[in-house]
Amino acid sequence: MTQPSSYTYLGPEGTFTEAALLQVPGAGEARRVPASTVAAALDAVRSEAVDAAMVPIENSVEGGVSATLDAIAVGEPLRILREELVPITFVLAARAGTTLGAVRRIATHGHAWAQCRSWVDATIADAEYFPSSSTAAAAYGLVDGDESYDGAICSPLVAERLGLAVLAEDIGDVSDAVTRFVLVGRPDALPARTGADKTTLVIPLPEDHPGALMQILDQFAARGVNLSRIESRPTGQFLGDYFFSVDADGHVEDARVADALKGLHRISPGLRFLGSYARADRRSPAVERHTSDEAFSSADHWLGGILGDRPR
Amino acid sequence: MTQPSSYTYLGPEGTFTEAALLQVPGAGEARRVPASTVAAALDAVRSEAVDAAMVPIENSVEGGVSATLDAIAVGEPLRILREELVPITFVLAARAGTTLGAVRRIATHGHAWAQCRSWVDATIADAEYFPSSSTAAAAYGLVDGDESYDGAICSPLVAERLGLAVLAEDIGDVSDAVTRFVLVGRPDALPARTGADKTTLVIPLPEDHPGALMQILDQFAARGVNLSRIESRPTGQFLGDYFFSVDADGHVEDARVADALKGLHRISPGLRFLGSYARADRRSPAVERHTSDEAFSSADHWLGGILGDRPR
Amino acid sequence: MTQPSSYTYLGPEGTFTEAALLQVPGAGEARRVPASTVAAALDAVRSEAVDAAMVPIENSVEGGVSATLDAIAVGEPLRILREELVPITFVLAARAGTTLGAVRRIATHGHAWAQCRSWVDATIADAEYFPSSSTAAAAYGLVDGDESYDGAICSPLVAERLGLAVLAEDIGDVSDAVTRFVLVGRPDALPARTGADKTTLVIPLPEDHPGALMQILDQFAARGVNLSRIESRPTGQFLGDYFFSVDADGHVEDARVADALKGLHRISPGLRFLGSYARADRRSPAVERHTSDEAFSSADHWLGGILGDRPR
Amino acid sequence: MTQPSSYTYLGPEGTFTEAALLQVPGAGEARRVPASTVAAALDAVRSEAVDAAMVPIENSVEGGVSATLDAIAVGEPLRILREELVPITFVLAARAGTTLGAVRRIATHGHAWAQCRSWVDATIADAEYFPSSSTAAAAYGLVDGDESYDGAICSPLVAERLGLAVLAEDIGDVSDAVTRFVLVGRPDALPARTGADKTTLVIPLPEDHPGALMQILDQFAARGVNLSRIESRPTGQFLGDYFFSVDADGHVEDARVADALKGLHRISPGLRFLGSYARADRRSPAVERHTSDEAFSSADHWLGGILGDRPR
Repeated sequence: MTQPSSYTYLGPEGTFTEAALLQVPGAGEARRVPASTVAAALDAVRSEAVDAAMVPIENSVEGGVSATLDAIAVGEPLRILREELVPITFVLAARAGTTLGAVRRIATHGHAWAQCRSWVDATIADAEYFPSSSTAAAAYGLVDGDESYDGAICSPLVAERLGLAVLAEDIGDVSDAVTRFVLVGRPDALPARTGADKTTLVIPLPEDHPGALMQILDQFAARGVNLSRIESRPTGQFLGDYFFSVDADGHVEDARVADALKGLHRISPGLRFLGSYARADRRSPAVERHTSDEAFSSADHWLGGILGDRPR
Repeated sequence: MTQPSSYTYLGPEGTFTEAALLQVPGAGEARRVPASTVAAALDAVRSEAVDAAMVPIENSVEGGVSATLDAIAVGEPLRILREELVPITFVLAARAGTTLGAVRRIATHGHAWAQCRSWVDATIADAEYFPSSSTAAAAYGLVDGDESYDGAICSPLVAERLGLAVLAEDIGDVSDAVTRFVLVGRPDALPARTGADKTTLVIPLPEDHPGALMQILDQFAARGVNLSRIESRPTGQFLGDYFFSVDADGHVEDARVADALKGLHRISPGLRFLGSYARADRRSPAVERHTSDEAFSSADHWLGGILGDRPR
Repeated sequence: MTQPSSYTYLGPEGTFTEAALLQVPGAGEARRVPASTVAAALDAVRSEAVDAAMVPIENSVEGGVSATLDAIAVGEPLRILREELVPITFVLAARAGTTLGAVRRIATHGHAWAQCRSWVDATIADAEYFPSSSTAAAAYGLVDGDESYDGAICSPLVAERLGLAVLAEDIGDVSDAVTRFVLVGRPDALPARTGADKTTLVIPLPEDHPGALMQILDQFAARGVNLSRIESRPTGQFLGDYFFSVDADGHVEDARVADALKGLHRISPGLRFLGSYARADRRSPAVERHTSDEAFSSADHWLGGILGDRPR
Repeated sequence: MTQPSSYTYLGPEGTFTEAALLQVPGAGEARRVPASTVAAALDAVRSEAVDAAMVPIENSVEGGVSATLDAIAVGEPLRILREELVPITFVLAARAGTTLGAVRRIATHGHAWAQCRSWVDATIADAEYFPSSSTAAAAYGLVDGDESYDGAICSPLVAERLGLAVLAEDIGDVSDAVTRFVLVGRPDALPARTGADKTTLVIPLPEDHPGALMQILDQFAARGVNLSRIESRPTGQFLGDYFFSVDADGHVEDARVADALKGLHRISPGLRFLGSYARADRRSPAVERHTSDEAFSSADHWLGGILGDRPR
């Protein structure tokens, strides 16, 4: 896999998403183009306008970012290349000269507003919420002279870049909040196995009966593969038709994961492999002896002896 | 269960959520108070300011509405009383005299924007997005003289109520989109069994190993109880600690559901029961003989005979 | 449960089965009638000629004693009251004056012959086998003057009782062989729970597909109930129609066992409960918290709260 | 696999086992040597004294023949080459001139006695049982002038061969009883796949907990492989240590069976493969699409594309 040389990300400049991208080795020196939506970012990869896109995928406070999951699940295949965790801390920023007591309307993204609500209620309870498409956009608005609001909840980075006054720091409810982002590229790439990997899949539910979901999950459990995320998602055609989006521990080059994927393909051939990539937290799964690569290789060898290595 | 006599809902007036509330028999004549957020609506129920709250919970295009799920999952217990499906159709509304070609900035909620994006790109591609906290708020802004934008994507109802011009109708991507809403009350209520019911649960994952999720789901599958929705949700404490939010077919007064709930409670005693209520689609599950109320009652009788009906 | 006052056993006098019966407290002083076959012994219980019958059920060298299992599985219901383990040691007995070198034909039961075969081949390789219906019958034959054979492989006890010469002791292959016997009574009896119990069941397989056996075994596994024996048995009608004979750890008064039995009854209502009784080895199972009586009782209580303790 | 040219079988001549052997194409013209026990027959194969041995393995009335299963499970590996079903019908034979009313003692094998017991009780209730090592041996005894008994329950064939008088025909309880026999050879043989095959395995239980047996059986169920026989068997070392003897539908060259065997080997590497061979009843299993050879091959191909066919 060659290193991407151009990137897009959910903009504008200064978002947590750009912060995630800047964590990727080499990205700081590469071409970086902000995109207005996740869908636009992914389309730029599909059309080869850029090599890869950084987009938010999960948030430890707010859960899965549905738009991203759905956008990767359909259309031309894409491949997740890596994930990045970014600590989320919020500041209340304003134009120079504004005091905390004078803030009446606060612009920010809905998710950020939810996370800072307790602080706002306790400190400036009569301040109103003004929706913004991103925390960075809220900060830009102050600089651009938007008079609709006088405060912005945003990242420390963008406040500093734009020279805004910081009226209060670390105002989120959850002091150690992090958001998960993924770097998405084209489907010819497969990051190397590191021993602490994650595999993301989209699995259509072939039939809607009590055992169907169990049969899918058993493909993981029977091979000792843990899931760190599962979500049923409506297919969009009609309510009650589902697919599953899951993150499984391990890399497709791990024999137990490869075997689970083959089992899934037999049950649900419309399965989509979205990538195997290093876990941001570098946590290796505990692998039991009977699901190790050695156990798989030993079983293959044993069966080969019985079959006389004849072609099947 | 007595009929609620006062309601709140995710406002302002004219939202799809109010439309959902108006589908509830008797709600049209009852007191109805809009709330600014889902959390505020639920708190009004908890504090007994109102009897029940209508809030969005799932969307056939956008998936689960995370904020609602999380808000019900924690804090003082609540109980889902019923669900309503509302067909979602969008119009582009504007002040009288505005022509389609003149629209430069369109206000709406992010979810609505995502659903109408294709139409906008095809018809007025240079129009910009202006985020709003709800589709109804976007419409109100036009009436209130907000000059930040000149169009609003909203429901036909609110456009009509406010006397706005409708420049285009039915502009959503998905022609038969519906959104699911739930009416939430206090935990002393249990709606009667109808034979076509749904039970919503929040289940903490007791341990994080490949078999733990299977053990939970087996409680449903082993009793022939289908799941129509499953989502793993971070607990908010740290990334990698989960609970599951699920909708199961059937009512807690169905023996198979009651038995599954007891099995879940043994594994995960922190389980939260969020309610059993009639399915909006009135679809009854197929129940196999061995999971029928009769099979449960017959097995109880048989075992009673062996135990000599002695107290255990 | 009142103490039985009369017994039968697989005779004649002096068999290992009588030794098992003599291990039962009080049996030494009670009336004891030998029976010629397992079926005859069980019929004597059914007809109330005696209160209970001791019969062999499993053998650590030879496996399940099929005739006993089948005889209990069909016909008028019976109930296993207890099990006894008897150490099996064999001697070669002969009439006084016979030397080892002079032994030409050895009478014994087929199972005993199999267990002493190595010793015979190594010591008196040219001795022939003379089949006998029991080890005790072989010993009696010597006393009764049967000239067909000049040696008998039997228990030390019967050799001593009959005053036979013991030419060699402890001649079995397996030095610590034990045989398992069960005391069988009528179905109104249920031995008290001891904490180290075993439950024996006969379970018809409702359907012959890959999941049917799993569904049955899952009733045990899902409640943490271990199986110490399982055998598929043809029903006798035609090859390929099965029932299962199993021993499960625990007593029907243990909540997890009672719950498993109810689950089995729902799937396979023709299930037969053959008894819960103390394990001969007094080994208590490890019970996990979620399958303890407390977990069951706590879950019942929790669900009762949800249902408002209304009658269902 | 070359055709065996010499055989042994559980003798003496005229047993049902020889009848089973004579059903094998070519065996009528091959060398056939009777053996006195199952163990001796198998040892003759291991020592290459003969090419194959016919031995009884299961009986639709009496269940598994434990000695055979245990003898194949241990020691030098053997391979089952085919199975034969033989209809079991019994006659009461005697020396010429004996009348039914004059029969006092009847010799036969214990299993045959059990199957004819009802007829004896109804017809000549005062006749005694005289144990014999086989039904054929009982018949030979009459010819050899053994005066210990005056009747023999045996096969019609041996009665005819020895010129004995047949006093009653078809005297077994079960009119359509059949016994299953297997032809056992050396482990370099693997019979060709016929589409209606059976695979016999011996599987040590790696750990004794409620889930261990389920984990083993799931290897079959998850691949849609039905079991037609299962028996837990004590290992012989001490009571409570087990292995499982199973017959599974299908041939090791069926992808679903091969995959199940690999799964079993990973869990229980001491697994022993006893052979894949044509079912005597020629009944083909129903194979679902997702466990067909095509589904396996398609999944292998799909995964190969993801892995770039790189060596793993």
